[in-house]
Amino acid sequence: MKTQLFISHPDIHRSTTQQFLKATASNEEGINIVHLDEEKEFAVDYHRELIKKADRLILQFPLYWYSCPYSMKKWIDEVLTTHLVIPNQIKELGIVVNVGKKATAYQAGGSERFTLSEFLRPFEAISHILGWKYLSPFVIYQFDYMSEPQKQQMLVDYLRYLTQEDYFSTKAKEDWFIKRANQYAYTTNESINYFEFIQTMKENQDTRLELEWMVKEMKE
Amino acid sequence: MKTQLFISHPDIHRSTTQQFLKATASNEEGINIVHLDEEKEFAVDYHRELIKKADRLILQFPLYWYSCPYSMKKWIDEVLTTHLVIPNQIKELGIVVNVGKKATAYQAGGSERFTLSEFLRPFEAISHILGWKYLSPFVIYQFDYMSEPQKQQMLVDYLRYLTQEDYFSTKAKEDWFIKRANQYAYTTNESINYFEFIQTMKENQDTRLELEWMVKEMKE
Repeated sequence: MKTQLFISHPDIHRSTTQQFLKATASNEEGINIVHLDEEKEFAVDYHRELIKKADRLILQFPLYWYSCPYSMKKWIDEVLTTHLVIPNQIKELGIVVNVGKKATAYQAGGSERFTLSEFLRPFEAISHILGWKYLSPFVIYQFDYMSEPQKQQMLVDYLRYLTQEDYFSTKAKEDWFIKRANQYAYTTNESINYFEFIQTMKENQDTRLELEWMVKEMKE
Repeated sequence: MKTQLFISHPDIHRSTTQQFLKATASNEEGINIVHLDEEKEFAVDYHRELIKKADRLILQFPLYWYSCPYSMKKWIDEVLTTHLVIPNQIKELGIVVNVGKKATAYQAGGSERFTLSEFLRPFEAISHILGWKYLSPFVIYQFDYMSEPQKQQMLVDYLRYLTQEDYFSTKAKEDWFIKRANQYAYTTNESINYFEFIQTMKENQDTRLELEWMVKEMKE
């Protein structure tokens, strides 16, 4: 699966969140990264090619005044066109957004009044009009207040959001972890026994699939 | 009442809608107009002064990909700051937005899926966080398909949106028309009898207020 990541941040070098995410995504195969603020004028045709080639598009930015920073809006205004609609082609759009307030602020009665689903409606509508499948946004709340284990967990979820096919399937999630563990098993010097982990994971998956099959049979 | 109008449109000279609106607003006293796309870099302090001085702020733009064009977003990102919050000061924020689709497209099940209230949530939240009163957006649907009388009617409503104090009050609406008619009565060469119009308008207003008072008395 090819993932195209477009990042918008006017001051990315000073953003610990964006540096953390970028460092993670940069080491991945199959992910192409473009930082929009580095381009004074967008090479429109080139960007459209990047979009066409990707299976999953990710727009990543900090929430500025309840929307994307203007460099992302400029990119949307200039690069997107309904000519990008290709019938029968399955393409996904994901949004990675980091916010400074805590999750409870984004609800009726909260300080921000509305949910992030509502603030991001324009992206959902873009996805719809271009025939793309909209993935539930990946929201990072208050990165700077996260503990180290929380950050590591978030990072794994972030990588899955970028690279896991069939994002909402439990089986795909298990397969993603097994594939990862296989990669690490042969390359790492860590003392973790990845082979044991893979074995357990596979057994659990088999048990789960068997149970699911039994429940299905019983219903019928 | 001082109204500050900020217009964003990357190609305003070719927009019949924007030309029509601008021509109308330009002849009005008490309205200051700034076209954001004419400024390469925003004089941030100057723009903040404009905001501070105004009683009503109007952001006017065509809907581009379900939001404002990027020049407006740049202005929001660079000019707005929570330091603009002044306790006990009443300031209003209005949005004038023109769209190419018809009104019925903006609803659940419609081609655009969501309402304009939803797409414009970021503006509503900005208004809230800065302590401003949010006026229901003034939406112009399919300007090019309007008949001449429809355009004239829309123009009057637009001027009221920009200049009428207490925008949602019926009395303020009547007073606005009476004041306008008074201005025209002494300046126009048209054959319309404005004095008669004013007389009728005032009588109707008196009758209405009397009825309202009676209903109130009866309830008590």
